Amino acid sequence: MFITFEGIEGSGKSTQIKLLAERLKSKGHQVVVTREPGGTPIADQIRKILLDAANKNLAPLCELLLYYAARAQHVEEVIAPALKQNKIVLCDRFVDASVAYQGYARGLDLTFIEKLGQVALKGIKIDLTFLFDLPVAVGLTRARGRASTLAKELREERFENEETAFHEKVRQGYLTLARKEPKRFVVVDGALGVEELAEKVWKVTRQKL
Amino acid sequence: MFITFEGIEGSGKSTQIKLLAERLKSKGHQVVVTREPGGTPIADQIRKILLDAANKNLAPLCELLLYYAARAQHVEEVIAPALKQNKIVLCDRFVDASVAYQGYARGLDLTFIEKLGQVALKGIKIDLTFLFDLPVAVGLTRARGRASTLAKELREERFENEETAFHEKVRQGYLTLARKEPKRFVVVDGALGVEELAEKVWKVTRQKL
Repeated sequence: MFITFEGIEGSGKSTQIKLLAERLKSKGHQVVVTREPGGTPIADQIRKILLDAANKNLAPLCELLLYYAARAQHVEEVIAPALKQNKIVLCDRFVDASVAYQGYARGLDLTFIEKLGQVALKGIKIDLTFLFDLPVAVGLTRARGRASTLAKELREERFENEETAFHEKVRQGYLTLARKEPKRFVVVDGALGVEELAEKVWKVTRQKL
Repeated sequence: MFITFEGIEGSGKSTQIKLLAERLKSKGHQVVVTREPGGTPIADQIRKILLDAANKNLAPLCELLLYYAARAQHVEEVIAPALKQNKIVLCDRFVDASVAYQGYARGLDLTFIEKLGQVALKGIKIDLTFLFDLPVAVGLTRARGRASTLAKELREERFENEETAFHEKVRQGYLTLARKEPKRFVVVDGALGVEELAEKVWKVTRQKL
């Protein structure tokens, strides 16, 4: 089973992935928790380029191809092998993020992004996608609070530094994707409390299992 | 005018680019000399990942997308602006290298590589491509001699470390490309002496100008 977690900066997905992973492990499942961009040493080298606040003039097409380069490596080294071993893979961001950020927000061609996805995924299907939706202002306040500590050290702030209008396009892009694939997407309210959200995520996941 | 230089490792193209650039400048032309992967600070960060001998398990698709990510940035920041200013751009490796290395040698889908090229080039046309052809054994002996000094320091040896059979496929791939586009490609004998080669390259370039 392959579950992805999507949402704008500060939507609370990372916390929920941890909680879901613990719960699944406590029920005896084998769980792989991973994230994009990254998840392998080579993809982490690509992550560094993508999130470095110093790389302000990264061309949108370069950005898109870097995400897919990292994803191809991630699929090959981590996701495909884990799914083959019947593990449950929980992934913080995946292909939908490219469609929302580089497609809907940056305006790159959606058909081309889809083609990249077809080639990079090698037939892997996502079983369930949680979309953590919340107002951009709330998410950015959370993300920027966080950015003052860990992310700042790593300079992983290129996206936090984007304009509010950009993040609004990302949010609307995600919601459009969720409407297009209602069977795969479950939209949850990212503004809810951590425990309430965890219960919701667990309920949906249990039903899918 | 956009001129690219292609060939296997150790084919002597870099030396010829320098000599042609000097000659063009001495005739009063504005010349931009650049190379792939690289040519901009962001693309150089990508170059580091691509050529690092430590990244042995780089997935072929990841490799291809990294080359195109670097190329997209290079086109946007360097090549397109220079051509717009009517400068002569001399580029050490370009799209044909992806077709030869990742297509013919690694076996990735040629149609997909062509699609990437269409998107990344944004309508830019190559006017002339010199293919420096020579036996793989000769090229590799040269390249490995060189690798013992500068490249080793930079760990830029991932391709030098490939098997001879791999470089043979690259060579044949390049020759196939040259046969397909005889108007754009000029195949020169990379085993010739530096000065003889320089005369040949200059003669062809002067005709094109």
